[in-house]
Amino acid sequence: MVLLSSFLVASATATMASAQGSLGTPFPNCASGLLAKNQVCNVTLSPPERAAALVAALTNDEKLQNIISKSKGASRIGLPAYNWWSEALHGVAYAPGTQFRKGQGEFNSSTSFPMPLLMAASFDDNLMEQIGEVIGIEGRAFGNGRYSGIDYWTPNVNPFKDPRWGRGSETPGEDVLRVKRYAKYMVKGLEGPGPERRVVATCKHYAANDFEDWNGATRHNFNAKVSLQDLAEYYLMPFQQCARDSRVGSIMCAYNAVNGVPSCANTYLMQTILREHWNWTDHSNYITSDCEAVQDVSLNHKYAKSNAEGTAMCFNAGMDTSCEYDSSSDIPGAWRQGLLKAGVVDQALKRLYEGLIRTGYFDGNTSTYANLGWDDVNKPKSQELSLQSAVGGMVLLKNDGALPLRLSKASKLAMIGFWADDAGDKLSGGYSGTPAYTHTPAWAARQLGYTIKTATGPVLEKGSASKWLASALTAARDADYILYFGGLDTSAAGETKDRMTIDWPTAQLDLLKQLGQLNKPIIVIQLGDQLDDTPLFDSANINAVLWANWPGQDGGPAVMQLLTGAKSPAGRLPVTQYPANYTSLVAMTDMSLRPSSGAKASPGRTYRWYPTPIRPFGFGLHYTTFTPTILNSSLTSDITLTTTNILAGCTSSHLDTCPLPPLPVSVRNTGNATSDYVVLAFIAGEHGPKPYPIKTLAAYTRLKDIKPGEQRDAKLEWTVGDIARHDEQGNTVLYPGTYEVLIDQPTRTAQRFVVSGPEMVLDKWPAPPQ
Amino acid sequence: MVLLSSFLVASATATMASAQGSLGTPFPNCASGLLAKNQVCNVTLSPPERAAALVAALTNDEKLQNIISKSKGASRIGLPAYNWWSEALHGVAYAPGTQFRKGQGEFNSSTSFPMPLLMAASFDDNLMEQIGEVIGIEGRAFGNGRYSGIDYWTPNVNPFKDPRWGRGSETPGEDVLRVKRYAKYMVKGLEGPGPERRVVATCKHYAANDFEDWNGATRHNFNAKVSLQDLAEYYLMPFQQCARDSRVGSIMCAYNAVNGVPSCANTYLMQTILREHWNWTDHSNYITSDCEAVQDVSLNHKYAKSNAEGTAMCFNAGMDTSCEYDSSSDIPGAWRQGLLKAGVVDQALKRLYEGLIRTGYFDGNTSTYANLGWDDVNKPKSQELSLQSAVGGMVLLKNDGALPLRLSKASKLAMIGFWADDAGDKLSGGYSGTPAYTHTPAWAARQLGYTIKTATGPVLEKGSASKWLASALTAARDADYILYFGGLDTSAAGETKDRMTIDWPTAQLDLLKQLGQLNKPIIVIQLGDQLDDTPLFDSANINAVLWANWPGQDGGPAVMQLLTGAKSPAGRLPVTQYPANYTSLVAMTDMSLRPSSGAKASPGRTYRWYPTPIRPFGFGLHYTTFTPTILNSSLTSDITLTTTNILAGCTSSHLDTCPLPPLPVSVRNTGNATSDYVVLAFIAGEHGPKPYPIKTLAAYTRLKDIKPGEQRDAKLEWTVGDIARHDEQGNTVLYPGTYEVLIDQPTRTAQRFVVSGPEMVLDKWPAPPQ
Repeated sequence: MVLLSSFLVASATATMASAQGSLGTPFPNCASGLLAKNQVCNVTLSPPERAAALVAALTNDEKLQNIISKSKGASRIGLPAYNWWSEALHGVAYAPGTQFRKGQGEFNSSTSFPMPLLMAASFDDNLMEQIGEVIGIEGRAFGNGRYSGIDYWTPNVNPFKDPRWGRGSETPGEDVLRVKRYAKYMVKGLEGPGPERRVVATCKHYAANDFEDWNGATRHNFNAKVSLQDLAEYYLMPFQQCARDSRVGSIMCAYNAVNGVPSCANTYLMQTILREHWNWTDHSNYITSDCEAVQDVSLNHKYAKSNAEGTAMCFNAGMDTSCEYDSSSDIPGAWRQGLLKAGVVDQALKRLYEGLIRTGYFDGNTSTYANLGWDDVNKPKSQELSLQSAVGGMVLLKNDGALPLRLSKASKLAMIGFWADDAGDKLSGGYSGTPAYTHTPAWAARQLGYTIKTATGPVLEKGSASKWLASALTAARDADYILYFGGLDTSAAGETKDRMTIDWPTAQLDLLKQLGQLNKPIIVIQLGDQLDDTPLFDSANINAVLWANWPGQDGGPAVMQLLTGAKSPAGRLPVTQYPANYTSLVAMTDMSLRPSSGAKASPGRTYRWYPTPIRPFGFGLHYTTFTPTILNSSLTSDITLTTTNILAGCTSSHLDTCPLPPLPVSVRNTGNATSDYVVLAFIAGEHGPKPYPIKTLAAYTRLKDIKPGEQRDAKLEWTVGDIARHDEQGNTVLYPGTYEVLIDQPTRTAQRFVVSGPEMVLDKWPAPPQ
Repeated sequence: MVLLSSFLVASATATMASAQGSLGTPFPNCASGLLAKNQVCNVTLSPPERAAALVAALTNDEKLQNIISKSKGASRIGLPAYNWWSEALHGVAYAPGTQFRKGQGEFNSSTSFPMPLLMAASFDDNLMEQIGEVIGIEGRAFGNGRYSGIDYWTPNVNPFKDPRWGRGSETPGEDVLRVKRYAKYMVKGLEGPGPERRVVATCKHYAANDFEDWNGATRHNFNAKVSLQDLAEYYLMPFQQCARDSRVGSIMCAYNAVNGVPSCANTYLMQTILREHWNWTDHSNYITSDCEAVQDVSLNHKYAKSNAEGTAMCFNAGMDTSCEYDSSSDIPGAWRQGLLKAGVVDQALKRLYEGLIRTGYFDGNTSTYANLGWDDVNKPKSQELSLQSAVGGMVLLKNDGALPLRLSKASKLAMIGFWADDAGDKLSGGYSGTPAYTHTPAWAARQLGYTIKTATGPVLEKGSASKWLASALTAARDADYILYFGGLDTSAAGETKDRMTIDWPTAQLDLLKQLGQLNKPIIVIQLGDQLDDTPLFDSANINAVLWANWPGQDGGPAVMQLLTGAKSPAGRLPVTQYPANYTSLVAMTDMSLRPSSGAKASPGRTYRWYPTPIRPFGFGLHYTTFTPTILNSSLTSDITLTTTNILAGCTSSHLDTCPLPPLPVSVRNTGNATSDYVVLAFIAGEHGPKPYPIKTLAAYTRLKDIKPGEQRDAKLEWTVGDIARHDEQGNTVLYPGTYEVLIDQPTRTAQRFVVSGPEMVLDKWPAPPQ
């Protein structure tokens, strides 16, 4: 969805006008008053019965007013207004349904975590769940305090396949397994262990929404032409995790069309796949539109003759509520024209309110989560977690030995660049709230007692760095080290805005070149999305490069902990770093993953298919050296392994989730620093349909604090689905053939096994409408 | 295909004009002469290399003259003319490529077996293979003698789903398993054990060709609308057996269209399913059109604008030769217009001639089958087999104890009815040759020394039997028994002619009624297709009914062996006997198997779906009583049986062929006659998609000569596919759920087992073109 800057201003104004900044609408009163008489308040009934009782009490007009995000409720029966649209991508954030008190006082801030791309770079599932839990707790606290709803439009699980995508850092990267695991642990953390949901999480954007605006196409009018193979193997996999496996409370349908049908009017996506194939029907989960997406159906996709018709199409196809700023759908028109029927409206309302019932929204103090409040926001432990996640995710891309810095209290640091000491929102990235504080790198260096000089720098500016040069040279002249804080901010890329280039901005390169003349060690710490770092890698004057993405409220201390060696870098790239010319080789609108030749030639997308990256997915340097070894297991040492025997004994109704024997890997720290180590296990080999991918991530884990000389054993959990492939009809299949397990990126050790036997279909993909 | 009566006359005339009736065209001479120089004669090369060498030597004009059934060869290089169209449905038969010498001498006759429907009623796989072998040997002998080609358009494996179909008796009945097994053993018998093929068999008609002419629709213009589920589960299953599992040499594409595309121009059927999914590409198997079907594409289906275009469409879709009387395709036109390309023609020729190379056609006396000749035709053992198969297939439908007849040498028999002593072709059915003899029931009775009187009777005549009554009564007056030989002949049903009613012809019923007045035992022996036998079953005057279909050259002795008790009946109905009103309930053009309600309501088709037959599929009485018992097995007694464990250890690339633990059944003969017993094992229960079939045949075997008091154990072989079902996309799936094994029809004993675990896809069905 879009957070228009005009909205942000408007909402800030509105907030200041309201009492204490609160939304002013209470949770329902089931203890007394009008609503108490309705069976929705009867906690001895099942949630579906309670929801049905509520919906039955509404008049037609009231019903039609409650299937948009800004629901009016029904004062006649005591049902309060409610805005379903809240946001919490990496902490409770601004949204029409979420406000922050201005100034001091309760609910004026929330914990700001790194952007999901940096969270994901840690390859630490447990960390994701912890972050999700903090965000869920703070989100529910904001809801209980009536500064927010308790339905949050997060996480964003569209795989980040094109480096130019403006919203890629909202996601956990380009790899399907990584995205699935992020979705699993983030949703689990957000919604809690159940049965009551802490908040309702929303996996978005369903489906294939991964660019903003390119060459005349925008997400509002784009028809993503996606093969069944790519759809099942890549674009929908994260949603399978959310819906089928994690039973998430809500899904958001996307702006774009998929294979001719706008996502929010797409029966194949919402009914055939989501609700039927994935059986996403328990707990009456609901589908919200992306915000204003309903209007796109007629206005931009021209799929309906009128907004009324388009609106009806969406509800009839399975969407349950229209997210919008005001009323950009035409629900009244759809109703008047008889296109929208009572049964569909009632079902939507039941799903929506059953979702709220399952959060305890109607249960007052008896709700499991009723006691969450302002005291649960910005807890020291949560703030520590934000710092820890920033440290864990940052990726060391180059190091000639300069890092960790050998500093003493007398060391002098030049901290140069646009985000070296920016106390604004540079560290936050998109979809942010107001953090309790923002600690810049300069702030952190000062805390550590170093003598520092700072100078700002260019961001996207082209041409020379002359405008910034004098102050930069002044800062650098006496320094022992030059720490350059460059890269990109959200002016380069974000919602509605894709990048046209992945080159470093020329003014920054010029500034670095000028600083290089000083012959001092230069460390580049890179904010934002990936760039082609070749000029930095090739320059002898630049000693190290650390990628920091958007690291959140403690991004400064996180950087300094790594540069000083207080912590060791162990993050891995969750995306491929492409060469700059990649943007001229592939159209953003080309949805194919596999390489192709001919008129629409493509070199392929993601590390699975694109062979010559600058730095591959999974890459990351350490301050020490590790030697991984694959131990023997029943999988890799069974010379008579067959597909049928791999599945024998599994009773899961989803065969792709059948466990494989855990992969035993032993890792020795053969260097001199204590460090985490991410074990990445890829699968390659000749099995399944051609072309064969270069490799595919099949398992990973993060081992913590391995000491020099220590040998640590790990057993990587994986499933049959992790070594399966998809055929051209989208079926998930376990194929006979040769398999290679490749450890690390680049490969450090490998083991081969051979699977014989027949092809085994793990998941039959539903055929699209004829 | 059609054997027009005009053709039969014409060919008979032509034959009489040719020397000795031989076709006059020799096999190729690879020993010397023009062809000997071509590498097609080099037996050290592989068949594909030999075929390629031959095709490379042909001019364009020659090539175009050899992709029709009546191939001209190429005299320039010594390639003889060859007619690919020979027939051998139940013995070598008349066809444009097959001639019989008139009068005495070599190749004036062939062994005539019962029609396949009666063969199939024996449920005796080994018998099918023996029959196939005899037909293959005689077919090759006719070929070697140049009275025939060695490519035979047989077997007919379209499942016989509608009782009205004129060609149903060419098939082994309505049940898929029965058809598959027939196809398997018949093809194996015909083509031989390999590597050389005795003859090339042709499974026909691909696909969904199972009516002739109904209510304005004919097979030449009909578009069969078939669901993927019915296609995969029913209509194509026999072809899967032929192509995928039996690697038959040839397939014939049908006249009708399937889901909008004429079968012979149907890329989905011929390329996607047949050659890709079933991998029917080894040995360069070929596809022939049904005869004149190419012309239908433009003329009747209006699928092409011209015959030239339609012709090209067929070849381009994968058909390799056009079967026709003369030249009803437009190959020259397709070529001139550039619609038919050299590559396609060459591929077709290579497939066709590689097929012949693999029969030893080019190898003179070195061919495995070169020595087969007239001495191998009509062997006593083959003739005995024909008799034995007629005995084995006949089904006792009613018996009040009158059978077996208690005869002495003094017994007097009235043998009444149109086929009691018809020495013509009444016993033969469709697609017949000239048998060495035809032994009628009266002939057999005379041989046995009984005193008989005969009278003919009506066939299809309506109204009273007055015309036949006097002679019938004369014959019956002094008789001890009245044996009534009625039913239908080929004037009721056959190629191009479906039945409009399945009632008994009224003149026959009248004759039986009049004979009933005599108060003598009446035995009805019914020729031809099933009728609603209710009037016979309900009549106390009719003591027994024996269904004899078309029993072939020894049909008379077969009947008499059963009536006298020399042999015991053990055949089972291979089709459902429907009530007469069935014909008003279901359109022949309705391809759905499952029952439906609403405007196009249907009570369902075949025993799997139709609940209230007169006599069900599998029904058949004996002269003794049998008590079957299901013994325990690892399948039926494992309380933790899972789908994954059922497949464990199987390494077949076609999971439906994975063996199940054989089903142990013990059968005791508890009566007084020695008899064969067909063990039928059906599967029922709640598993897989609704609606659930009533039951499905999953295994069977025929136990021979069980003596009174004897207990015989059998282990029924079956596979996972035999208990699997098909989903709506056509996938074959092993489902968890409850299963019941039901023995016999009606059920005599049952055992239940439960399968847990996930759904396992055994075969992914290819999606049709979007």
